[in-house]
Amino acid sequence: MSGIKVGVLGSQGKVGQAIVKAVENADDLTYTVGVDKGDSLEYFSDTDTQVVVDFTHPDVVMDNLKYLIANGIHAVVGTTGFTEERLETVRGWLVENPKVGVLIAPNFAIGAVLSMRFAAQAAKYYDSVEVVELHHPQKADAPSGTAYRTAELIGRARAEAGVGASPDATTSELDGARGAVVDGVHVHSVRLAGLVAHQEVLLGTEGETLTIRHDSLDRSSFAPGVLLGVRSIGDRPGLTIGLEELMDL
Amino acid sequence: MSGIKVGVLGSQGKVGQAIVKAVENADDLTYTVGVDKGDSLEYFSDTDTQVVVDFTHPDVVMDNLKYLIANGIHAVVGTTGFTEERLETVRGWLVENPKVGVLIAPNFAIGAVLSMRFAAQAAKYYDSVEVVELHHPQKADAPSGTAYRTAELIGRARAEAGVGASPDATTSELDGARGAVVDGVHVHSVRLAGLVAHQEVLLGTEGETLTIRHDSLDRSSFAPGVLLGVRSIGDRPGLTIGLEELMDL
Amino acid sequence: MSGIKVGVLGSQGKVGQAIVKAVENADDLTYTVGVDKGDSLEYFSDTDTQVVVDFTHPDVVMDNLKYLIANGIHAVVGTTGFTEERLETVRGWLVENPKVGVLIAPNFAIGAVLSMRFAAQAAKYYDSVEVVELHHPQKADAPSGTAYRTAELIGRARAEAGVGASPDATTSELDGARGAVVDGVHVHSVRLAGLVAHQEVLLGTEGETLTIRHDSLDRSSFAPGVLLGVRSIGDRPGLTIGLEELMDL
Amino acid sequence: MSGIKVGVLGSQGKVGQAIVKAVENADDLTYTVGVDKGDSLEYFSDTDTQVVVDFTHPDVVMDNLKYLIANGIHAVVGTTGFTEERLETVRGWLVENPKVGVLIAPNFAIGAVLSMRFAAQAAKYYDSVEVVELHHPQKADAPSGTAYRTAELIGRARAEAGVGASPDATTSELDGARGAVVDGVHVHSVRLAGLVAHQEVLLGTEGETLTIRHDSLDRSSFAPGVLLGVRSIGDRPGLTIGLEELMDL
Repeated sequence: MSGIKVGVLGSQGKVGQAIVKAVENADDLTYTVGVDKGDSLEYFSDTDTQVVVDFTHPDVVMDNLKYLIANGIHAVVGTTGFTEERLETVRGWLVENPKVGVLIAPNFAIGAVLSMRFAAQAAKYYDSVEVVELHHPQKADAPSGTAYRTAELIGRARAEAGVGASPDATTSELDGARGAVVDGVHVHSVRLAGLVAHQEVLLGTEGETLTIRHDSLDRSSFAPGVLLGVRSIGDRPGLTIGLEELMDL
Repeated sequence: MSGIKVGVLGSQGKVGQAIVKAVENADDLTYTVGVDKGDSLEYFSDTDTQVVVDFTHPDVVMDNLKYLIANGIHAVVGTTGFTEERLETVRGWLVENPKVGVLIAPNFAIGAVLSMRFAAQAAKYYDSVEVVELHHPQKADAPSGTAYRTAELIGRARAEAGVGASPDATTSELDGARGAVVDGVHVHSVRLAGLVAHQEVLLGTEGETLTIRHDSLDRSSFAPGVLLGVRSIGDRPGLTIGLEELMDL
Repeated sequence: MSGIKVGVLGSQGKVGQAIVKAVENADDLTYTVGVDKGDSLEYFSDTDTQVVVDFTHPDVVMDNLKYLIANGIHAVVGTTGFTEERLETVRGWLVENPKVGVLIAPNFAIGAVLSMRFAAQAAKYYDSVEVVELHHPQKADAPSGTAYRTAELIGRARAEAGVGASPDATTSELDGARGAVVDGVHVHSVRLAGLVAHQEVLLGTEGETLTIRHDSLDRSSFAPGVLLGVRSIGDRPGLTIGLEELMDL
Repeated sequence: MSGIKVGVLGSQGKVGQAIVKAVENADDLTYTVGVDKGDSLEYFSDTDTQVVVDFTHPDVVMDNLKYLIANGIHAVVGTTGFTEERLETVRGWLVENPKVGVLIAPNFAIGAVLSMRFAAQAAKYYDSVEVVELHHPQKADAPSGTAYRTAELIGRARAEAGVGASPDATTSELDGARGAVVDGVHVHSVRLAGLVAHQEVLLGTEGETLTIRHDSLDRSSFAPGVLLGVRSIGDRPGLTIGLEELMDL
């Protein structure tokens, strides 16, 4: 056994189990211990764990981070609920332990992160941009959070570059046909049995189009991103927000 | 020179020129003569023309058909504006000349015709169906006429088969995100520089999806359908409505 | 409890369990009993089972069918290994029990069946046809059996219609770039981590293309086809080969 | 009239005419003069032209550049045939006129440039990468030059990052099914009537895929890239190779 020593918080949950499995399958990582409700966080120190992955709950994640940072353990965090106030608190703890690295990311699917980045980079070179997201029909919100965020990033990139609105000569529209509009970007939500989670960003200019499509076919799609975080965070002291910051883009 | 003798009405218009060219390029067809505004329809009889293609104007198409039918010449018609009353008139003329065949079709793009047919056939076997159409941004109406018609055909097929509504758990929707609804089918309209005319019908059930996509990349896409009509109409006396009737589906 | 009474052979296998679940979830079907290795086939008669689904093994399927037919029970069979000789034997049994219906099908994914049918129907109307199939990288054969079969059906339809070869001006080819050729149809096999089982049939003519794409995202995709068989086979005495025969296409 | 003053070499050719039109349609550019075979290059100096676009021929492009650089005129060059020796010569001329900028690019379609860049950036984060390119059937080479170049860039990025080969368990392959292999990347070439020029890069890892697709539907697709070059080259003295160098990626 060799490589980075990795522990998992919430190791018996659905996501936690998948992460344990992914760590165990990686040649350059060693799984140390899982900590669940009722277990002591000291298990991590006792096992010389170097990086802990936290996919738990907003109620407990701050206590987890306080302990990990104080004990010199890096953290990769997928738990939600980080307000600016919480981020400030984490930054404060990191000042006192400046060698520790903490990654907090809202999305660990590498393809989702790359899609958003590429869409934002390409957006100013095209006359038109629209987003089509496609999900299973049990989804409650339309558009998806990722599509909403993607449209915001596109809208901001175009505004910064001084690009005008996408051309649109529609004068006769059946209500809803042209989709929702987020920061000037039209967003369409398809709900279809058999689908999982998919998104297309369509960009067009004279005579050509560019399409960036991301398909999540399985909930395990966060695993490669988590491993990327685990491998990188030790070399990146302080607070890092967003997986894209660890990528060479 | 051999094969079916074909003439063209409106031969100097954009569409007419493309049809003349397509006829001239076909080994089994012979182009006889083009008739345009001011020319006599007798050119067709004088040249023993067997089939005439009419992409002209609602104002003149009835006079054209009256002449062609009376003179035993078959017709392939892409001109619009055929009301039920007009169709009855044409049927009356055909009773008097029972060997003549007339094809009137709203859409000669074979892919559009096949897409609609396949979508309607498949619709009852799937829990969910949605339509996404994508066009250039100069288009005035959303959704496109073809998408509207496709949704109607899907809706009718599902109603006849007693299939319920597509499942949809959306409870929080940004206005327009879920598209327009035509006969119970959600339809989304994308407008993008660089595109021409495209349509996807998405069908989904447990664990699988079927997608039928049609891309028109050039206005010449009606030509193969017109030639199919020209080659078939001589063997099909009476009035035929819709290219699909001539196809072996 | 009401509706058609359905039993399952091999009910404890992976596929069998999925079918039991699908039957139990269907309002118009009633699950009676599962029979596995060592169980008596008489359970089906004892429970007045009307239709039995058989996803077992070539070694036992003939004995199963002999019993079911003799006892007036319809069968829906996904087990493989049916030679022409075996089919003849089954037909012989059915002559003696002419009210019984047996469906034997190599593929129960509705989308796969529809894709093949639509591709074969459309093939003669297009100058060009190619097939791209995309699967997970653990797959041993390339192209997939479904792609091979699809290409055969396309090739046969084009031959029957007298359509020539797809145009291809390639004079300089890096070995393999143009794919494999099955009955004159080019077939390309993509192997990619993250994929499950997908296939595209691309058809093209002047100015337009038609794409028929089937995505299997989950092994449960055979369930709707099995249920379609269960619901239909009682009204279709004798031997039926292929799910498409039960579909209204 | 205001903005950058732009002249065109080869202004009466097919590409040249499209560029003249694009310049004339741009609010921030002014078209000065076109120079064709037999015309004097002095027309450019006489009209105070600031940037000249050269889509001519390898036989004349060096003389053109010599004159333009010597006269302080920036150049945007799509002409082919630049060997390393020729590039050295151009660099020498630019040393003597250090304020002049010259852009030489093999591909001005923004989507092609972005596709290659994004594919190379994403390639190391995925287990699998393959390329599918789709073109009209008059194309002589397979794979396309762009697909070949894309595969090279992907292969290099993966080699530099130490990523292993894409997984592939194929043991039974019909000759050609798995495509051509360029630098370890499988490349598939589809040839289909109705298509123009299209390319997909497919990347996959556990549970997810990313697809980057570029569609060129019209030969005019080089125009936006040429205008980007015209607007940028004045601020970039010296020799720039490749449109991507002018993009903020």
